[in-house]
Amino acid sequence: MAQALQGIKVLDFSHVVAGPLATHFLALNGAEVTKIEPPAGDPLRNYTLDPSQRGMAPAFAGINAGKDSLVLNLKSSSDLQRAKSLAAEADIIVENFRPGVMDRLGLGYDSIRDLNPRVIYCSVSGFGRDNALRGIPAMDQIIQSLSGLMKISGLPGDPAMRVGFPIVDTFSGLLAAFAIQTALVQRERGLAEGQLIDVAMLDATLVMMLSVVNPLLMNGETPQRTGNRGFSRAPTSDTFATAEGEITIGAVEDKQVDALMSIIGLSHLLQEAEFSDRISRAANADALYCKIAEALAARPAKEWETLLHGQGVPAARVQEVQDALDMPHLSDRDLFMDLKDDAGGEQRILNAGYRFATGGPGVKRAAPTLGNHVEIGSSAQSRRTG
Amino acid sequence: MAQALQGIKVLDFSHVVAGPLATHFLALNGAEVTKIEPPAGDPLRNYTLDPSQRGMAPAFAGINAGKDSLVLNLKSSSDLQRAKSLAAEADIIVENFRPGVMDRLGLGYDSIRDLNPRVIYCSVSGFGRDNALRGIPAMDQIIQSLSGLMKISGLPGDPAMRVGFPIVDTFSGLLAAFAIQTALVQRERGLAEGQLIDVAMLDATLVMMLSVVNPLLMNGETPQRTGNRGFSRAPTSDTFATAEGEITIGAVEDKQVDALMSIIGLSHLLQEAEFSDRISRAANADALYCKIAEALAARPAKEWETLLHGQGVPAARVQEVQDALDMPHLSDRDLFMDLKDDAGGEQRILNAGYRFATGGPGVKRAAPTLGNHVEIGSSAQSRRTG
Repeated sequence: MAQALQGIKVLDFSHVVAGPLATHFLALNGAEVTKIEPPAGDPLRNYTLDPSQRGMAPAFAGINAGKDSLVLNLKSSSDLQRAKSLAAEADIIVENFRPGVMDRLGLGYDSIRDLNPRVIYCSVSGFGRDNALRGIPAMDQIIQSLSGLMKISGLPGDPAMRVGFPIVDTFSGLLAAFAIQTALVQRERGLAEGQLIDVAMLDATLVMMLSVVNPLLMNGETPQRTGNRGFSRAPTSDTFATAEGEITIGAVEDKQVDALMSIIGLSHLLQEAEFSDRISRAANADALYCKIAEALAARPAKEWETLLHGQGVPAARVQEVQDALDMPHLSDRDLFMDLKDDAGGEQRILNAGYRFATGGPGVKRAAPTLGNHVEIGSSAQSRRTG
Repeated sequence: MAQALQGIKVLDFSHVVAGPLATHFLALNGAEVTKIEPPAGDPLRNYTLDPSQRGMAPAFAGINAGKDSLVLNLKSSSDLQRAKSLAAEADIIVENFRPGVMDRLGLGYDSIRDLNPRVIYCSVSGFGRDNALRGIPAMDQIIQSLSGLMKISGLPGDPAMRVGFPIVDTFSGLLAAFAIQTALVQRERGLAEGQLIDVAMLDATLVMMLSVVNPLLMNGETPQRTGNRGFSRAPTSDTFATAEGEITIGAVEDKQVDALMSIIGLSHLLQEAEFSDRISRAANADALYCKIAEALAARPAKEWETLLHGQGVPAARVQEVQDALDMPHLSDRDLFMDLKDDAGGEQRILNAGYRFATGGPGVKRAAPTLGNHVEIGSSAQSRRTG
């Protein structure tokens, strides 16, 4: 069955993570993405500490699969003209230069719309297209720092700590992909001709944090740093050491708490006034946490997990990423793609993370080598087949 | 101008966060979302530590704006019949019960497709619709624990630490919304009749972490915990204390490093062999970090930020969430919505986080009180207007 975006042409002027991630989600759904790269290539090609990977760093390979690479020097007038011709034919354009750069090149939305009124043009920037902060350099760490994200994990008094991977880039990229898909629905349904989309990474990050931002906006509730304890503040919803490994337990409802306390042999504590209901347990949370932790020290996390699942109590051992990837059920979920690269090697990377019954996500080719896309006359084709 | 999803009917059987967040992004684009609630309501209505907010907890209000609430007891055959009738007319159905529950109710995909072949049916679960783990209870904390997410922030040896807000629910919900929008494009373009979408929170979370998962899949690179130091491992890309507040600096390129060192009066260090190039600076990172930190202690973060921006060096003070919300430029970005609730009050909540030139995101009504949606005869209408 046909993928949703087959035949849709995406012209991608973006680089590093947030922009290319947006077009990655489009490529995974069948769009024909042409990645415009400067002669030196997208800097993400070299985001590796291993010199042998330069040009095809895993971070690059992971979000550029199935795309074609066309090298254009936008300072050359003939290459710039070629970019404009491609823009005139594109369904979707994505760029994440500093606001104003595309306008100065004559590749801004207003210019392209004159040639191509149906174009969906998405700009991704730190702070948005048109305000006083538009010139300030932004990147994942910068937005983590400004947004408050570094102050809402961990415990009170902990140093400010970023999320250890580029979550801002990733969420912003997916949000941009969602916005583009929305504009495409709008266009296909005849509700708009084309569209200009303005994605700011700071705005996207505040939306990512909506679970704490909305309570703050509505009621002035300051976000609390509660470590691994869940929102309920129940000490039965937290992470504990065991005889082997750590375990996270999410016992919030009374029947889950009853089951947990029974399994670890502490049911009698629920008879005591200080632990007899939700309110008292929250008030004496640390005391109860210590008693639970003491009991859990008797067996490995994996055993507790099985016992708790048997009684319907949410529980999971704390795993490393590799442990997660090794979980057997994942092999049947189309989560991984094994792709041939231009050099004949094979790469395993992640797919989109959801499944369709028919025409679902996936690509057949690995990320392109720089400039794999060559042009013969006025029609473009790829050096690769398939 | 018209929003993308005007006239699109969404029947939402989901509760708490990931499912309702998916339909939230649809509602923000004009979809008519009918939220089916049990007589006790979505449990998220009561996710508050303030008893006066019960029924309309901010976490609930923030992701259910613009939806209608219809109370159905799916254990009653007449209510179940009503649910089936609505399902027969829906464009999109979303549910996040434990896999198998909707099938047992006769509301599974196969049953609904027989009535409504064009339906786009999205199931959100912890591990997917059809595998050995489908019965295991999942929630945000559980998936954070299993996915490896708790082991990739902070420094080596730090305890496992969750991201302090439900990032798994949030990312999974947005990914589900993206998948639904993709299926709608597919349907509108005549490439598929309807669609079954299977979103597993574990799979979505691994995709959210793709910046570390893909290098692990491709080359066996184990994720490193680097605290606030960026991927480059450069000590000039990190977070530092200052005379007042902390600052994050992202100086990675040589010219940015030169500018930083000049501004803080340490240019001479770049002449020394141990700090003269990228490789040597990474090898002696902690020593250079200490020298930079010592220099930065002389002035407040805000002053350094201005000086660094003047030379094009990415830099940002570490803010609390409230500081971010107070940034003046945000008032012109349509990021906030001021909505009237059913009781006549006003609520401020976040919008979608991106802008369109025309027909962009936004709703006019706050989240519904339980059962605000009443039915007269066979045609449904809302107690509210507007």
